Amino acid sequence: MTGKTSAPFSHVHIVGTGLLGTSAGLALRERGVTVTLEDASPSSLALAEDYGAGARRGAGDPEPELVMVATPPDVVADVVIRQLEAFPSALVMDVASVKAAIARDVSSASSHSARFVPTHPMAGRERGGTVSGRSDLFTARPWVICPQDSDAHTAIRSLVVSLGALPLEMSPDEHDDAVALMSHVPQLISSLAAARLLGASELALGLAGAGVRDVTRIAQSDPALWIQIVAANSAPIAQQLRSLRDDLDTVLGALDEVNSAGSKKVLAEILSAGVSGVSRLPGKHGTSTAFASLIVVIDDSPGELARLLTQLGEWGVNLEDLRLEHSPGAQVGFADLTLAPELVADVESRLRDAGWRIAGERA
Amino acid sequence: MTGKTSAPFSHVHIVGTGLLGTSAGLALRERGVTVTLEDASPSSLALAEDYGAGARRGAGDPEPELVMVATPPDVVADVVIRQLEAFPSALVMDVASVKAAIARDVSSASSHSARFVPTHPMAGRERGGTVSGRSDLFTARPWVICPQDSDAHTAIRSLVVSLGALPLEMSPDEHDDAVALMSHVPQLISSLAAARLLGASELALGLAGAGVRDVTRIAQSDPALWIQIVAANSAPIAQQLRSLRDDLDTVLGALDEVNSAGSKKVLAEILSAGVSGVSRLPGKHGTSTAFASLIVVIDDSPGELARLLTQLGEWGVNLEDLRLEHSPGAQVGFADLTLAPELVADVESRLRDAGWRIAGERA
Repeated sequence: MTGKTSAPFSHVHIVGTGLLGTSAGLALRERGVTVTLEDASPSSLALAEDYGAGARRGAGDPEPELVMVATPPDVVADVVIRQLEAFPSALVMDVASVKAAIARDVSSASSHSARFVPTHPMAGRERGGTVSGRSDLFTARPWVICPQDSDAHTAIRSLVVSLGALPLEMSPDEHDDAVALMSHVPQLISSLAAARLLGASELALGLAGAGVRDVTRIAQSDPALWIQIVAANSAPIAQQLRSLRDDLDTVLGALDEVNSAGSKKVLAEILSAGVSGVSRLPGKHGTSTAFASLIVVIDDSPGELARLLTQLGEWGVNLEDLRLEHSPGAQVGFADLTLAPELVADVESRLRDAGWRIAGERA
Repeated sequence: MTGKTSAPFSHVHIVGTGLLGTSAGLALRERGVTVTLEDASPSSLALAEDYGAGARRGAGDPEPELVMVATPPDVVADVVIRQLEAFPSALVMDVASVKAAIARDVSSASSHSARFVPTHPMAGRERGGTVSGRSDLFTARPWVICPQDSDAHTAIRSLVVSLGALPLEMSPDEHDDAVALMSHVPQLISSLAAARLLGASELALGLAGAGVRDVTRIAQSDPALWIQIVAANSAPIAQQLRSLRDDLDTVLGALDEVNSAGSKKVLAEILSAGVSGVSRLPGKHGTSTAFASLIVVIDDSPGELARLLTQLGEWGVNLEDLRLEHSPGAQVGFADLTLAPELVADVESRLRDAGWRIAGERA
């Protein structure tokens, strides 16, 4: 357990007791903050109280210093406008996963919008709902804060830091373009790719390897939530998907005339663009360092992986990433260790000496 | 170390000493088989000999019982035809990742094609080349065998089993459709998705989470190899990509008119099709069982993950899957444990009691 940083507000009112609202309530209460709650659903509100995320707001309660709006995206702007009017001295923040439309709607409808700070914690991967709320949901996750009047901004930034998150500053439009590219478009691509599997034979499914699993993993996400997100950020998403469609048409043209001059060059260009694109993703510590991979064969039994990792720990080897991989029907699995490239040769030889089988490596 | 099953051939000749040929040579020699080698590249051949994958074929060497053709896909058919002529009693197999064109070319050009068995081991994920050869490359990996005259088929199946792989039988066309769907199309989709990142700002890249990393991971693969694979299987790939393009156009239409009647239904349908599609992928032991996930916060230090896994091992908990996940700049990571759903509540409460922090769970 790490020590909790104290929060810069002593009384926060949270509207919406789903995953984010409940988690924020739990985290703030751990830091000694008074939290009041409100939700359109009486059962969700009662559950959040039972979980200890705060107490429902009573008629005589004093004005909060901060209101956090954590409702579904399609009602956020209306709720923010009402909260700004109800509490004339409070700051108001939201945590929705789209920002430009909300910021615009609030500015145009409210004369108090200088007290509103649009934000977005990148912590929505888990199952939603009050029951999934966790006080450490925001730990080490990026949390976008849109620029605002400097005092309001400073206070919200302090709050984000006190919750253990990593503040990132960008304008509402920058945010929406960024999440379209980094989150919404990958989600739709994964869904489109996974939809192809509806037509797969049982034989074909038996060939499933790590590649198709990686590409389709996030297609398992909740459609009901994603319809709202995608609908609220349709323009930046459509722009990216249109450029993808143009590239796809180019690939289809090359495949249809695969033996014509230039077709293989077209395929080479799109494959190379993919290599360059993926290399831009930041590494573990925010750098673009390339890592190497070592694939170790492990027996499919509870203690084996721990034994491997204990050994690596004793040697002081820090893993950058680790994945388990199985083939259907196999009694062994593969642990795919991601390491700094300069460590690979030494770790491989130590592992072999200790009796481990190495199934491969990748630079 | 597991005991090695003996191979059904005593002398195998391998043509092509890249990753697959070298790995097969190493594996066969471990099983006491005499292996001779040949490669168009003198340096690759010399390296494979140094690695112990076999000895270069001499003029007076006897006829092998089996020839394995492991050359690049675009010359496989020609090499197979020449080998069938050179060795009138030997079986010939290939290991290329496309099958229909090769089977057709061999049948139409050679009267000996009953001695040819087209195969494809699904073991090509690692870095290519002689230097990456491993005797256990094929362990627990699916290995497709196309139907052939029964004696030839039985012998090749025994060989595949003796190398520790999992034989799967399908016709050349079934194979090519299956790998288009399960391997080639995911590869191209991943490349197309990763190509979008070329236009991402540094700010946007800072938001990269597990989703975009999963979708674009295989876009790192070697373009030179993939051009050959994609070109040799262009028709089944184009068919799948065309159906994806139709779905993409439907999504774009819905995004452009996102507030019109029916648009959200269109988005819901494609997202739901993705959920259904990914649920068809076989689970760890070849079933489609759904698993649950528990996300544990771990300090970013060498011993922590091993300590977690040792604890799980002591409790007899078998992980179905395990992934590490980091946010840029964070001093903690997340271990995403995949478990049988009935174990989650118990494991979570034991971990909490032992002082671990739980960051979330997913059904």
